[in-house]
This record gives sequence, C-alpha cells and structure tokens, in this order.
Amino acid sequence: MKALVYNGPRDVSVVDVPDAKIERSTDVLVKITTTNICGSDLHMYEGRTDMQPGRILGHENLGLVIEVGEAVDRVKVGDRVCLPFNIACGFCKNCERGLTGFCLTVNPGNAGGAYGFAGMGPYSGGQAEYLRVPYGDFNCLRLPPDAEEKENDYVMLSDIFPTGYHATELAGVKAGDTVAIYGAGPVGLMAAYSASLKGASKIMVVDTHKDRLALAEKIGAIAVDNSDGSAVDQILELTGGQGADRGCECVGYQCCNQHNQEVPNLTMNSLVSSVAATGSIGVVGVFLPKDPGAKDDLAKQGQIAFDLGKFWMKGQRMATGQANVKAYNRKLRDLISEGKAAPSFIISHELPLSSAPSAYQHFDEREKGWTKVILKPGV
Amino acid sequence: MKALVYNGPRDVSVVDVPDAKIERSTDVLVKITTTNICGSDLHMYEGRTDMQPGRILGHENLGLVIEVGEAVDRVKVGDRVCLPFNIACGFCKNCERGLTGFCLTVNPGNAGGAYGFAGMGPYSGGQAEYLRVPYGDFNCLRLPPDAEEKENDYVMLSDIFPTGYHATELAGVKAGDTVAIYGAGPVGLMAAYSASLKGASKIMVVDTHKDRLALAEKIGAIAVDNSDGSAVDQILELTGGQGADRGCECVGYQCCNQHNQEVPNLTMNSLVSSVAATGSIGVVGVFLPKDPGAKDDLAKQGQIAFDLGKFWMKGQRMATGQANVKAYNRKLRDLISEGKAAPSFIISHELPLSSAPSAYQHFDEREKGWTKVILKPGV
Amino acid sequence: MKALVYNGPRDVSVVDVPDAKIERSTDVLVKITTTNICGSDLHMYEGRTDMQPGRILGHENLGLVIEVGEAVDRVKVGDRVCLPFNIACGFCKNCERGLTGFCLTVNPGNAGGAYGFAGMGPYSGGQAEYLRVPYGDFNCLRLPPDAEEKENDYVMLSDIFPTGYHATELAGVKAGDTVAIYGAGPVGLMAAYSASLKGASKIMVVDTHKDRLALAEKIGAIAVDNSDGSAVDQILELTGGQGADRGCECVGYQCCNQHNQEVPNLTMNSLVSSVAATGSIGVVGVFLPKDPGAKDDLAKQGQIAFDLGKFWMKGQRMATGQANVKAYNRKLRDLISEGKAAPSFIISHELPLSSAPSAYQHFDEREKGWTKVILKPGV
Amino acid sequence: MKALVYNGPRDVSVVDVPDAKIERSTDVLVKITTTNICGSDLHMYEGRTDMQPGRILGHENLGLVIEVGEAVDRVKVGDRVCLPFNIACGFCKNCERGLTGFCLTVNPGNAGGAYGFAGMGPYSGGQAEYLRVPYGDFNCLRLPPDAEEKENDYVMLSDIFPTGYHATELAGVKAGDTVAIYGAGPVGLMAAYSASLKGASKIMVVDTHKDRLALAEKIGAIAVDNSDGSAVDQILELTGGQGADRGCECVGYQCCNQHNQEVPNLTMNSLVSSVAATGSIGVVGVFLPKDPGAKDDLAKQGQIAFDLGKFWMKGQRMATGQANVKAYNRKLRDLISEGKAAPSFIISHELPLSSAPSAYQHFDEREKGWTKVILKPGV
Repeated sequence: MKALVYNGPRDVSVVDVPDAKIERSTDVLVKITTTNICGSDLHMYEGRTDMQPGRILGHENLGLVIEVGEAVDRVKVGDRVCLPFNIACGFCKNCERGLTGFCLTVNPGNAGGAYGFAGMGPYSGGQAEYLRVPYGDFNCLRLPPDAEEKENDYVMLSDIFPTGYHATELAGVKAGDTVAIYGAGPVGLMAAYSASLKGASKIMVVDTHKDRLALAEKIGAIAVDNSDGSAVDQILELTGGQGADRGCECVGYQCCNQHNQEVPNLTMNSLVSSVAATGSIGVVGVFLPKDPGAKDDLAKQGQIAFDLGKFWMKGQRMATGQANVKAYNRKLRDLISEGKAAPSFIISHELPLSSAPSAYQHFDEREKGWTKVILKPGV
Repeated sequence: MKALVYNGPRDVSVVDVPDAKIERSTDVLVKITTTNICGSDLHMYEGRTDMQPGRILGHENLGLVIEVGEAVDRVKVGDRVCLPFNIACGFCKNCERGLTGFCLTVNPGNAGGAYGFAGMGPYSGGQAEYLRVPYGDFNCLRLPPDAEEKENDYVMLSDIFPTGYHATELAGVKAGDTVAIYGAGPVGLMAAYSASLKGASKIMVVDTHKDRLALAEKIGAIAVDNSDGSAVDQILELTGGQGADRGCECVGYQCCNQHNQEVPNLTMNSLVSSVAATGSIGVVGVFLPKDPGAKDDLAKQGQIAFDLGKFWMKGQRMATGQANVKAYNRKLRDLISEGKAAPSFIISHELPLSSAPSAYQHFDEREKGWTKVILKPGV
Repeated sequence: MKALVYNGPRDVSVVDVPDAKIERSTDVLVKITTTNICGSDLHMYEGRTDMQPGRILGHENLGLVIEVGEAVDRVKVGDRVCLPFNIACGFCKNCERGLTGFCLTVNPGNAGGAYGFAGMGPYSGGQAEYLRVPYGDFNCLRLPPDAEEKENDYVMLSDIFPTGYHATELAGVKAGDTVAIYGAGPVGLMAAYSASLKGASKIMVVDTHKDRLALAEKIGAIAVDNSDGSAVDQILELTGGQGADRGCECVGYQCCNQHNQEVPNLTMNSLVSSVAATGSIGVVGVFLPKDPGAKDDLAKQGQIAFDLGKFWMKGQRMATGQANVKAYNRKLRDLISEGKAAPSFIISHELPLSSAPSAYQHFDEREKGWTKVILKPGV
Repeated sequence: MKALVYNGPRDVSVVDVPDAKIERSTDVLVKITTTNICGSDLHMYEGRTDMQPGRILGHENLGLVIEVGEAVDRVKVGDRVCLPFNIACGFCKNCERGLTGFCLTVNPGNAGGAYGFAGMGPYSGGQAEYLRVPYGDFNCLRLPPDAEEKENDYVMLSDIFPTGYHATELAGVKAGDTVAIYGAGPVGLMAAYSASLKGASKIMVVDTHKDRLALAEKIGAIAVDNSDGSAVDQILELTGGQGADRGCECVGYQCCNQHNQEVPNLTMNSLVSSVAATGSIGVVGVFLPKDPGAKDDLAKQGQIAFDLGKFWMKGQRMATGQANVKAYNRKLRDLISEGKAAPSFIISHELPLSSAPSAYQHFDEREKGWTKVILKPGV
C-alpha cells in the first residue's frame, strides 16, 4: 500500500510499504478515507523527537472497516469509523476510568499509545491506504448514516475537536464563563469552538497570526492580537480588571515571542496573569520532559520558570495532558450529526495523499492560510 | 487589653493596647480563650514580609462572644465560637461560591483577608484578650455544648485542620487512594489525618524531623524519612513503581534540602515524580509572588524551575491556595463533636499569652518537640 | 404606594397600601420598574394555598435602589438590581453552601423564603411600587450599564431563567446530551433555552399547547405534541429507542391529561420511560406535600403512584426543588450582557401594574398567547 | 462438575452438570474457591422471578484462573481473581463511562448482565466448581499476594462491599456527614461500613433484627430499632430535628412492617422524612418494574405511593440502581490489602458447596444469626 513515511528531519515521502493487516483477533482493519496532518506531526517532522526513519505518520484517521478479527463483536465490516488518536486497551486501571490517553497496556512502561507517533508505541500511522486498529471494539467510533457527507467534520473527532474540548474540560469551562485561550492554531480554535458550544459568555483568543485570529472571530470569539501590545493587559481590560474565569493553553513548548524566539514559559505565565483568582487553566499544548534541542537551559530539562507564587496566591488550578478522546467523541459526534457543530470550518487544504510531502513543508513553515490540511488516500 | 505585638524581625512582645471593640453593626466581639501560633506567623516573625510594627498577630482563634452588633442575627452573647482565619463578607462573587479565602470585599484590591496578617487587610490578630470579628454572622462558627471540654480540638478548626483537609480536597483524595504528603509539620500532619478520615489506603508522609515523623506514624501513616535517601524513590517503591494517586504540598517556599539550604522547587518537583500519571496534587504550603530576601534569582521573582514537561506528559493536575475554612469547618466540627476526630494530638505546648514571645523563639528555631503551641490569654 | 393585593380565590386588586420601607440596617429599598406574573402565582390566585388575604403578590422583581440600611456595604443608591425570588440570609448552613432556596434563617421552621408567597415567610411581594429587600448585600444582583435597555431580559433572572437553568443542572445536562423536557410553559421554555446554551445535541419539548410548542421550535427545540400520540413513544423514536440522556419536569402537580383532568404522576412516570437507563431527571415543577383540594386520594397526601421499579432498574437519578437563584444569576446575567442570551423572547404581554388583575385572569385561564406577562409599576 | 441448580420455588440441589469451559477467545476460565449466597438469590429461590429451572445460581465469586482464551492479554493462568457480579463488555456506551451495571452488549435488549441471575442474560452462576468469565480481561479483578489469606474479605468485592459502597456514593456521603441507613442486612452493613471508611460523623442503621443491629454497633454505627418506635422520630432526634444529611435504602421492595406484611413504600417514604432538606438518598435495595406476585395493586405494576410532594419541597435527590462493581473494586481491594478494611466480619457461616441447599433454606427463613453464608466448592 501507499503510505507517508518519515525519512529524517524535514524529509517525508509517499512510498510503497507492506499492507496493514489483522494481526490479532481483537484487531479491526480500516481503509483510510481521510487522514489529517496535525501540528504535533511537525514535532517529528522537524526532527525534535526520536522518531525512527521508515515509520508511517498520521494519527487523525477515518475510514471504512474492511475486515475484523474473530474476537470483534461490535464493529462490522462496512462500518465507517473514526479512530481516536489514542490507542487504548479498555481494561487497565486508567482505561476503566476513561483515562484512555494514559493506557497502561498498549505502550508498556509508559502511559499512553498512539498511531504513528514517537514514544507512543510501535503502531503505524494512518497517512496511508490502510490502518490496523488494535482492540477494535474499544477504539472504533462508529459513525451515523450521514458519515460520508460530513466526513470532513467527523474526521476532526480523531484528535483536534476532542483535544480542544478537553482544554475546556480541564479548565472547567461552564455556561456564562469568560475564557482566555492562548493559541489560535487548530487546537486553540477548537477550544474556542468548544467554549462557545458550552455557552461561555466571552471567549478571548490570543495569537499573532491575523488569518487565524480572523477564524476565531468568525466563530464568535474576540481576537486578541499579541502584536498589538500585551495580551494580558488586553484580557484584563476585557474582564474589568479581574481576569478571565478560565484559561486554555493551546500552544505548547514551542511558543515564540514576537522576535520568533522560543520562550517556553510565555503562555503559562501569561495565563496565570490573565486568569482571575480562583480560576482554572487547562493545558493541552505539548510540553516535553526533555528537550535536548532547546536553547534554554531549563527547557533542555523539561522545566520552565513558572510563576508559582502568583499562581498560589490567586488560588488557581491547572490540569494538563493529552485528551482522552473517547471521553468526548460520542457526544461531539452527536453534535455534528444533529447539525449543532461543524468543525470542518478549520480546513484550509484538502489534498490527495501524494501531496502530503509538500503539504508538510508548507504547514511546517507556518505559511499564511495553511491552517489545517486533510489528506484523501483514496483519491 | 494585653496583646502580642510585632515589633520587628524576630521581636515580639506582650503589651497593653486599646481594647478591641464593636465598630460596625455587623461585628461580633469575642473574648479569646485559646489562640495558636501558626507556622505562617513565622514568615512575619522572621521579617520576610512587610508586616507593620505595632500590629497584633494571631489568626487561629477561639473564644466567647461578649457583645454583638445590632445587625447580628444568628450569633448570641455567650456562644463559644471558633473563627476561621479568613475574614470574609459572605456576599461577594467569591464568597457566594464558598471561596471565602478569596473574598473581594474585606481587603480591597486583593482577594482574601485575615486576622493579624501581612498583606491581608488591617485586621488585628487574636493573640490578645479580645478580638473584633467583622461580619460576625458569617465568620463565627458556633460550637456545641462540649466546647470547653474539647476546646483544644475545636481551636484547630480555625486554620490547620481545615487547611490540612483542604490539601486533601485540592488533591482529590478519595477512599482507597494512596497519598504522598510532603511536610510533617502541623499542616502536613493534619493533611495525613484528613486523608485517614477519608479512607485513604496508604498515607506516606515525607520529612526529615524524626519527632514529626513519629507523630505521622502515630496516626497510621508511613513515615518517609528524606534523610534516609530519596523520598521519591521510597514512594515509588511503596506504590509498586507507579507513584501515589494523590500528592499534598504542605511545606511551601521555605523548603530546605538536607544541607539546610532553601530549594523552593524541591517539594513541587518531587511531587511530580512521586505522583502517578493522571494523579493530582494539592498545594497548601505558601508560595510568594515576590520574595526579595531569597538567594535564588527565580525565587526573588516568585518563580520556580518547574518540571512542567513531566507534569504534562503524566497528565497531572494541581490545585493551590489558602483554605476556604468555612467550606469545611462545620463538618470537621461535627467529627470532633461525635468523637471521630481529635486534632489536638498535635499540640506540644499549652502556654499563657505572656509566654508567647519565648514560644515564638523556640518555634522559629524548629526546636525538637515544638510541634504546635497554643496560648491561653485568659490564664 | 400602589400594590397588587390578594383578596381571596381568583380575586386580586391594585390598592393603596403603606409604603415599603427600610426596617433593618441590612435592608435595601427598591423602586420596582418591572415585575412579572409567574405560573406559581396562580397556585395562590386559584386559592389552592393558605395565602392570607391582604398580602402583596410578586416574586419576580427588578428595580432601582433608592435607599440602603447603614450596614449595607456593596449595594448603592442608584444601582439597578434584580432580586432572586428566594430571600436568603447568606450565613446559615444551607446558604453558605449556595443552597439559598433552603435558607434556614428567613422563614423559621421551614427551609426557604420568598417575596409574596404562601408558606414562604411574611415578606411582601413586588407587584407594587416599592419593595423591601432583606439582607440586601446578599440578595441584590447588580446589573451592568445596559440594564435599562435590556430590562425585560434581566428581569427573567429573578426566577424563570435560573429556574429553567436549574432544571438542566439538576438533570446534569452537558454538551452533546439529548434532553426531554415536559412542559412548554415559561419554565419549560427556559429549560430548553438553557439546554441549548449548554450545547445539548437534541432538545425535545413536550406539551399540548401549539403556541408554546411553536416558541420551543423557535429556539431550536423539537416540538413533541402530546395530542399527536404518546410523547414517550415520540421521544423513544427520536432517540433510537434508547430514551433521552436527561429529562426535565417543568409542569408540576397540576399536570393534566388530554381530557383536562389532573393526573399528578403523568409527567414523572412519562419521564422515567422517556429517559435512558443511567439517565437523570431534574424536577422544578412544584409538587405539594399536602393538597387537600385534589380529587385523587394519593394527591391529597402529597403522594404519587411512582414507577420506582422501572426507575430503579434503569439506574436513574432525580434531583428536585426550587432553584437557588443566586447559584446562577451572575453567569446568566453575563450571558445577557454579552448578547449571548435574550430570554425576553418569552414575553407575550407588557402591561402597567393597574392591568394586573385582568392579566391574572387571562393567564389563569391559560388563554392562547398569554405566555408571560410583565408589569411596569412605574408606567 | 458439581453445581447448585435451581429446580423451582424453594428447591435447589447440588448436581453434576457439564464443565464450564472457554467458549470465546476473550473468555477466562476460573476454578471457584469461594462463592457467596446473596440476598438477591432469594428472589429467585422464592420463585418470584422467571428463573428457568436447571440454571446454576451464584454471582458472588472468587477463584483461580486455570485457562485463558487466546485474545486475553492481562489475566494469566494462576492469577487469583474476584469477579464482579456484573458481566460487562468494556466497550459499549455505558461501559466506557464506567456504568458496567448497565452494559448494552452482554444482555441484548436490556441494560446489564450477571452470572446466574433471572433476566440478566444466559450466563451460568458460580455456585459451582468452575465458572466461565466472558470478556475476561475486563471482568477479572486480580488480587495481591495475600489473596488466599484474606480470601473471605476479597470475595466481598464481588458484590456486597461495592454495593454497600455504591449506596454511599449514590447518596453522596462525604466526611463529616450524618447518614441514615435503612436495612442492617449484609448490604446495609456494608453501606454503614463504607460510610465509616469515608469519615461520616454519625451513622444510624435502622432494622428490627437485633442480631444485625448488634453487628452495626460493632462497626461504630448507632442502632435504630424500628420495633422501639418510629425510626424517623429516632433519627430526627439524633440529628437535632433536621434529619440526616444522607440516606441509604438497603432493603428493597420486600420491605415488611412490624406485622411482617410487605409495605413497599415504607423505606422510601421513611427516608424522605429522615433526611434533611437538600439531602440525598442512595437506593440499592431492589425494586421491580413488575411484581405480579405482590398483594398491593400498585406493587403489581412496580409502583409505590411515593411522598413526592415532601421530597420536592425539601429539594432532595435520589440516585438508584445496581452497583457498577468495577467502579469501586480496585480501591476497595487496596483497602483490604493495606489492612484498612476487613468486610468478612459479616460472615456467619462458611460451608462446603454440598451444604448450599440447606443454607438457602436457613437464609430464606431469615433465621437468627444467618447473616451471610459463603461456600467453598473446593472443600
């Protein structure tokens, strides 16, 4: 089959590889019809991880079930399914509490597995024609009859829609809350969209990219352009000096200041100042336990200089980590199906799989207008 | 009246000051019968705050109501009452949600007020014969008929029992959980005691003071002596390599390593390593937004070098801040009254008010056996 | 002053009464500018309560502060304020947990007080020119500068908007949920509106009045007309046979079947059948502990024949009771202020106070088109 | 193998039946070493269900894994495991949220399956030498090295310990709460024990059997003997007239009054009166949707005459249903393992499997001293 393979830093190509196939009786085999490029694919693309050359990328996948293992009960050949980027067993201590992002089974010695991801187990990604799904009954979200028509909406259930939603859950966003979101990339936009679905009264999205801020405004948020002066000051002014009730970090360790230098503590400390006393912060932007390639000494060790004193005095809370996609994907699916949500508004490019290498290059350069790329392996 | 007054760094004395009195119609006047010295009094005593000379210290107070303002409805002369260290209005945005530690009324421009405390408003402390209690109906906890007999238990409701309990609430401790507590001072011991009341399955308390660790063992916790090797390693071993379900920080910014040097990030980063993936951490040890007297450059600005990368990868949570005493003091009172809790086990010294200056000195020197001092102004 | 007074069953009149005035130092005096007639006013109007003749009705009130007692700190003369229908002290065991609908102080021997309501304390209602507000700092919600312009929206914060919202909170409605709401009166419509604000995926509203169902459809709900066949069957069909995730009871004990006979268990048992296994039900429709005027023997004793067996087998939950308005009115106010909510869509009639007697009559007859009446005493 | 088989009303016998065996690749085969008789087995024994003759009873099972299907990953031959009475798939809508008592897969058309139970699917019970466990990785709780030594404690994790705990969770019991528990049978005692583990301040257990009340007192509860006068009055007196914070129903539809007549609404209405305004009630006693054998007309249809009016006025809540055992069994196992819980105190008789028929007879007659019977098939 054709698949997008990682060769080394900033080098990917579409090549022929052995077909994905059923390996265990609990597996499901999926013919991929849509697969996205995610911002976190760039961490690997840029060579900042220990991704092995030759592996297939892609953890935002949707497709058609073409074969099921003999122990699979619920999923049937012909089902159109969306796959959470987390691979999870369903029966470990964490999975049984719904914490599928921290499965103790699928990636022994670590908590959590994923398709085509450095450090997340040996699983191949879905930027390919076929994908093997382990523990298929647990890991397939079945889609309703309108699945083909709304495929570009449903594919967002694999990662960024639940991840954006997770940011608002970690932050405890409730109806009527004011929310400050750092980052207007796909995840930040999905966090803003989720806050809006939950009835937030005021959603402020911080970024410096005007095209992304324009998308934030399109969904009813207030754009806070950090290049127009301190985002913290703007948010304090928008909230009567008190700060927002809730904050979301949707940028991660590669956050840059206006001179394009990485300043890993910029968003976290800005959030502490932007959020009110007794407020809470959800952190879905990725931070690394080690980052040998960083320039900053603290960052090399996975540390930031954090305003703990202010955070403590304000009695704030923070919750972090990758989304447990299964905790949200059913309900978000229903919102799409009922016409209450349409996250595909975020898509800027829909391309065949063969265009993936060039798409990676444009996306990596944060080229204007390249918000979200989806790939169609079948085309 | 007699009162303990702050004169300057490491200089307090008992002197005659004007009597406390009713100033507003919502006030209650209390004759203090027990008042404790708190570890946080030492921050002021040591001159690390901007406490003004001449002010009366003391925020852990219990006494007899001797007068009430004419707008007071619930509290009656003759009631024995315990006063939360937080002073709160009861009607602001934060108080009405139970967040009385962050009252927006009593200390304008800040969130939260307290008796006899630097930066917490102009209120006099209760290490004195009499105390004025603002918003008396809201701030007095009335005690049951056995109040005198169990006065040394009930006085712990003013601060450390609720503060220790708050640590376990911030950490989300539930029945069956394993809990790692850093700090076996009065607050750490109260956190361990609270975890035990809630049915934790294993409570591990970290400290280097053997007398305090012995108290922890007395209430059924496992003593983890940091001088016997890494506390983190000991906790990982005690939890099958996974880490504890929950962690509590009960030390604060003055945490010292074994060479008695302040290492402000020691407890927080140890907790990140001691707590399991998906676990949560409650932080009630005090951290300061500014600490000009610190040696460490980050600490001067109220920052610590925090293991955010590891924290994020483990999907952990933390919640912080001073206890909202009123959120817990009724239920904890009932536990004392029903004979299910007796927090006075922590008391090492019961002294007349006149001995307060010498008690401060012993306590400040962390002298062996000086765990908790209570003062009896009436004696 | 002019005020609407209850004289006896189906007999109210606007008469001159002594002016409301400050009676205690914690009181606030409000000049009423808008006051609504509520469905629960009809219980008194119809003579089914022990309301004393001569009392002033009206518990949905908004106006201008014209005087404050000397112990009032927060509320100022000139503030425009909306008053929760619950009167609460702010300092009792229930109030301090936010359960202001069950205040133990204001109506001794009972839990909960209200303006102008049978069995809810001696307080006069606000269908009058002036209103005395006890514990004014606690009971006044201050409104933003657009208060006059959006007065018809903000007045809904006194009762029905929070009550409808409370129904969804009691039922545990979250984003993506399907919700079945019995009753398309003002409270049912506000419950539907609240479910929509919170991101419910499908909202089904049951009633037999086509004008009310049309309003439900206008806010995006699905109208389920009980006269077109069993509401339960329609809801099961709309939810793939499973039933709704959540249910709301917004009718109460006077629920009638299609032959206009009161069938007090109709909505509750229909909800048990309409809601899925593991689902939950919020009950804000009023049920009485005694109803001597009822025809049904069980109803006389405040009982219904309840499908407990089915409820239990389905592992359902229910939560009940009047709304704690203060738990929601700030956030809902902010939604109005930010233009995200406009509950005035429900208003069918805006009349001077003098028209109140005739308005009561029309409303009591459930006349077509009389959804919600608001009165303007100042006009 | 030998197994206890249901022949018809009040007729069970131990006979030879075909051996249990692995039927699917996800199955686990367990050699039963301890299996209990449960109060709910009596519903079948007494012939009040549609249990088919010939089926094996027994849903409280513990044993040794002797074979695993080829798709089983976590459970190994030689593991000692305790089996939740609920059989669950792990991947349906309810299971993935932890609601394993309402699995949609294992008993199609219903929510929830169990071993050896009428209406809960075709699964054989474990009062036998061997038991087939479907979805073994999900349904086996592995026990620690002290499993044999504490086997009589661990076997309680199959049902009554989690069920009693569930009652306190449904009721929302927290540290410091007062709790009224109706029923001092095994489940009621486990609810009292759980409330104690969670730090309840006062636990009141209602029954008329003095031997069971004595056990309640032994674990620190207050015995409320309903034969000494109204339990409601006694509870109100014990709670200063307010009622308990929380209530637990641990009796079910077969509740009898003092004349030994079934009065199905007795416990529920007593709880409404025994619990304070704003309080909550957990219902784990079984109520049936249909009970043709009942004398009461309402009961035949699965209804009770419920005090909804009083319940509503008090703003109470109730939550119901069978326990989702997996939600609790890990943490409760850890409490046993750490020596913090020892639920075997409830056992009155330990017998070989061959004595099961006579044990059923004694237990069914509620003979004095027959609190809990456990069977040892291997003996």
